[in-house]
Amino acid sequence: MISDRPSCPQLDAILGREYPILNHGFVRVVDYMGGDDAVVQAARVSYGAGTKTVRDDRALIRYLLSHNHTTPFEMAEIKLHVKMPIFVARQWIRHRTASVNEYSARYSILDKEYYIPDSEALAAQSTSNRQGRGEALGDTERSEVVERITEGAEAAYHDYLALLNMNDEGEPLDPAKLGLARELARSVLPVSYYTQWYWKSNLHNLLRFLLLRTDSHAQWEMRQYALQIAEIVRIWVPQTYEAFVDYQLGRLELSRAATVVVRRWLSGELISQAESGLSPREWTELHRMMGRPETGS
Amino acid sequence: MISDRPSCPQLDAILGREYPILNHGFVRVVDYMGGDDAVVQAARVSYGAGTKTVRDDRALIRYLLSHNHTTPFEMAEIKLHVKMPIFVARQWIRHRTASVNEYSARYSILDKEYYIPDSEALAAQSTSNRQGRGEALGDTERSEVVERITEGAEAAYHDYLALLNMNDEGEPLDPAKLGLARELARSVLPVSYYTQWYWKSNLHNLLRFLLLRTDSHAQWEMRQYALQIAEIVRIWVPQTYEAFVDYQLGRLELSRAATVVVRRWLSGELISQAESGLSPREWTELHRMMGRPETGS
Amino acid sequence: MISDRPSCPQLDAILGREYPILNHGFVRVVDYMGGDDAVVQAARVSYGAGTKTVRDDRALIRYLLSHNHTTPFEMAEIKLHVKMPIFVARQWIRHRTASVNEYSARYSILDKEYYIPDSEALAAQSTSNRQGRGEALGDTERSEVVERITEGAEAAYHDYLALLNMNDEGEPLDPAKLGLARELARSVLPVSYYTQWYWKSNLHNLLRFLLLRTDSHAQWEMRQYALQIAEIVRIWVPQTYEAFVDYQLGRLELSRAATVVVRRWLSGELISQAESGLSPREWTELHRMMGRPETGS
Amino acid sequence: MISDRPSCPQLDAILGREYPILNHGFVRVVDYMGGDDAVVQAARVSYGAGTKTVRDDRALIRYLLSHNHTTPFEMAEIKLHVKMPIFVARQWIRHRTASVNEYSARYSILDKEYYIPDSEALAAQSTSNRQGRGEALGDTERSEVVERITEGAEAAYHDYLALLNMNDEGEPLDPAKLGLARELARSVLPVSYYTQWYWKSNLHNLLRFLLLRTDSHAQWEMRQYALQIAEIVRIWVPQTYEAFVDYQLGRLELSRAATVVVRRWLSGELISQAESGLSPREWTELHRMMGRPETGS
Repeated sequence: MISDRPSCPQLDAILGREYPILNHGFVRVVDYMGGDDAVVQAARVSYGAGTKTVRDDRALIRYLLSHNHTTPFEMAEIKLHVKMPIFVARQWIRHRTASVNEYSARYSILDKEYYIPDSEALAAQSTSNRQGRGEALGDTERSEVVERITEGAEAAYHDYLALLNMNDEGEPLDPAKLGLARELARSVLPVSYYTQWYWKSNLHNLLRFLLLRTDSHAQWEMRQYALQIAEIVRIWVPQTYEAFVDYQLGRLELSRAATVVVRRWLSGELISQAESGLSPREWTELHRMMGRPETGS
Repeated sequence: MISDRPSCPQLDAILGREYPILNHGFVRVVDYMGGDDAVVQAARVSYGAGTKTVRDDRALIRYLLSHNHTTPFEMAEIKLHVKMPIFVARQWIRHRTASVNEYSARYSILDKEYYIPDSEALAAQSTSNRQGRGEALGDTERSEVVERITEGAEAAYHDYLALLNMNDEGEPLDPAKLGLARELARSVLPVSYYTQWYWKSNLHNLLRFLLLRTDSHAQWEMRQYALQIAEIVRIWVPQTYEAFVDYQLGRLELSRAATVVVRRWLSGELISQAESGLSPREWTELHRMMGRPETGS
Repeated sequence: MISDRPSCPQLDAILGREYPILNHGFVRVVDYMGGDDAVVQAARVSYGAGTKTVRDDRALIRYLLSHNHTTPFEMAEIKLHVKMPIFVARQWIRHRTASVNEYSARYSILDKEYYIPDSEALAAQSTSNRQGRGEALGDTERSEVVERITEGAEAAYHDYLALLNMNDEGEPLDPAKLGLARELARSVLPVSYYTQWYWKSNLHNLLRFLLLRTDSHAQWEMRQYALQIAEIVRIWVPQTYEAFVDYQLGRLELSRAATVVVRRWLSGELISQAESGLSPREWTELHRMMGRPETGS
Repeated sequence: MISDRPSCPQLDAILGREYPILNHGFVRVVDYMGGDDAVVQAARVSYGAGTKTVRDDRALIRYLLSHNHTTPFEMAEIKLHVKMPIFVARQWIRHRTASVNEYSARYSILDKEYYIPDSEALAAQSTSNRQGRGEALGDTERSEVVERITEGAEAAYHDYLALLNMNDEGEPLDPAKLGLARELARSVLPVSYYTQWYWKSNLHNLLRFLLLRTDSHAQWEMRQYALQIAEIVRIWVPQTYEAFVDYQLGRLELSRAATVVVRRWLSGELISQAESGLSPREWTELHRMMGRPETGS
């Protein structure tokens, strides 16, 4: 039996479209394999007659995702073309399960494109979170910051070309000089400079990526990419994405001790932080998650 | 710019077709992403202007494959549906880089399908190779072997159903009995029984799989699957497959010492095994590979 | 600065000891690298001065594990020697992130050792769970089952030797016969036969393995291995294991909808299943998890 | 039977020692598991009685490595602490099979340490190899390059501190300013700045890393790290390393067509490039590899 190749018309409709991110970056879908159907198909092979009782594809997908049956989600695949600052690429690449082909600055000259944070992004170091941002900068400090970053990036590119002994048109600046090898000259460029790559991942690993990188603790710039990709995933596999939001993104995880506290609250008991086995930070966090004022608890 | 989804018409033409293997097995292509074009596209992103001098896609693919630039080959993906004996599946699964959804004998009842080697496959233990086959069995011994395997497999399935307390129609044999859980009852079935799975791999890992599993040291049954998949790969990505044959399947690897020997032969020198630094086995093997009679060397 | 090699004296004390599992199986620790200290050391490199505020190693490990900072747990490694039935090995191998060297039945003869479930393990198919066990079998049915499995396994081994043309002492049965190749003869052995392997995993992937395989939905036989390994991990990395129990094994995951329900319960509201957005199964499950009677909810 | 923990005294002797690389970098061994013995032990489990004929460990290791039996080499593991320029880290991280904990510039302040190539490293772009270096720069150009790189790196660090609103002692420059978040401020630092990480790999993947990164096509700076690690591997697993040099590093790979040419040469035939099926580049390369002058061939 010869079959037609499966496709997702709603994703076909945006294939190749560049979604702009930050000042020079983008994400676009290059290709894909399978969709919600591929997840269901694989699960039905695995569980054989065992899935006959679950007639509804949506219910099956929700069951799989909420019960950590992850392998069927590996059966769908997507390939993206992404352009992002080097410091974002450095975080991104830590997800080791994807395939990557990155633009090589050993082979080719990098363009003069660097990241300048816009107003929303310009914030001071957080005082409570060692890895995050806190208060927005004032107008004056913001202007100074943008100016400083811009001037530094421009000066670095000037150095880059000078080391290559090359002018803006790619011609030798000084015929008497050799010019430094590209792989060395690029060492003067800051990590704010843009790179680009093809990035291919299966749906399971992509959901894991989104869970971590749409989180409020992810760096803001990284998160802009994750949020755009989440939107693409919503278009691509609507049933899986809905289940992902309900069971993973929107999930609340209670530790063993926190579970006991909530159970006791539900049975009408009062309990003190000291009795709870939770640290003060966990105690405050639990109240916040449960929408319960801390006083009188 | 909205693009059309890439496709390989020659692979579309066989999508879903079952290629029979062994007495009950098969391989069929379920879906794929990209082809030779995807390899070239990824390489051109990586090397940027660096690939402009290689105008010919075929030449670029040959260059990549012969120089171990493997990542562009990760950009194409294929999904197969395979049915094979459990002992074949046990070898296959050792390739850890693929995605797999296997039929579960915990959820569902296995069919009465088991592997019986045909005449070509029925051979004695090799006397020179501890993991391989040697001389073909004689007619009588062959008949006895087939009969013994068949009777054992039939008896095991009879036990399987009896343990499940189930007749051929899936109805209880004895209403007074509970029947053993499926996940336990299946433990009596031999590894000759067939299982099946969806198996998804990128092209790079698939070529590695083919290199190892089409080899004459692979178990004959495993090799039948690898050879059929190689044929599918030839249809799917003809330029990559041609390069694979020329630079990997058909490649000769000379150790450091063997290289010295060949160089000396080429310069007209004679050299003895003792001088060569090769073990006697390696010495013999080198003559075989080089089509050179051992005497007088 | 030359340092001493880190060690875990409490694990050194059990290195090589065989912990028996099922009727012929075992687990033993062959070697390891690092322990709780290695996790802390890696985290302090990652976060640099950022971890100075967390002076307490235990608190740091608990923070890492509860916030999905998984990479420091990859820095400890353990190698086990395991003997288990083939059907257990087939589930185990699905964890693709480990290194494995399995006994090869192509090279060597398998021993006559097969799995016979004991009384605790002999149960009927569950009526509510397609992949699990339900009611214990009665004494009579149990005896019949054991007898049937035993006789089948004995008969299979008899066939195995006959195909190899080999008696119990490994000598030819009939000098006129060649004997079937080992890689084919083994195909008559049931998946209840024991195999063994060296299995090496980092701590992060091992915890993931334990989370899935100590679960009540894992097959009982598989779970016996996971439980024993969990005990080994408790000895090896006591602080990590404690955090694992508190934040992962004992964790409660509430879906987005379930979180809303619990919050409303805590604020004193009543809510019906229909309003809750939960399926009937999820509704019942939530009551069970929260220790709350379903009636009147 | 309780066993002693395996160790490699010759590696214990250098545990923790920093081997300096480039102007500020280093490699040091933090910990390890197993050595040549672990490879042999795993192979003997796999092949069971099958390895009894190979009594000599060295011969077994050579057999395994030359026949692509790679899994036993996964049974030894090593953990390194490495400090290297960001552009080196970016190449290194592409080896996805290792575990990594990198110093985070989101949590902590980077030191003012950047890479300045020394005389040996300062070369012009290769004219024949798009990704490599060619002629050494002249003295004048070299001085200019070093000066330019140094000034740029110093200026960038000045900007970094200014953005953080921090002086050399880590105190606020201007109490009226907030200072930019660390994760943003670091974006002005060039990829010549040093980062560091813990990096853990099994021996099989490490050999693969060494094969690619000690190659003359690898970037010179990356190669300095690979060469030092190769020396560490030689100390750690002398038998494996010897086999690696003989069968992999020193191996010659002949394509299918090149094999035919060499065979014909050996049988005394002359053959032209046109007949050979080799491209002109391959033709020249084959002569070079075989130590055969091109004229008259």
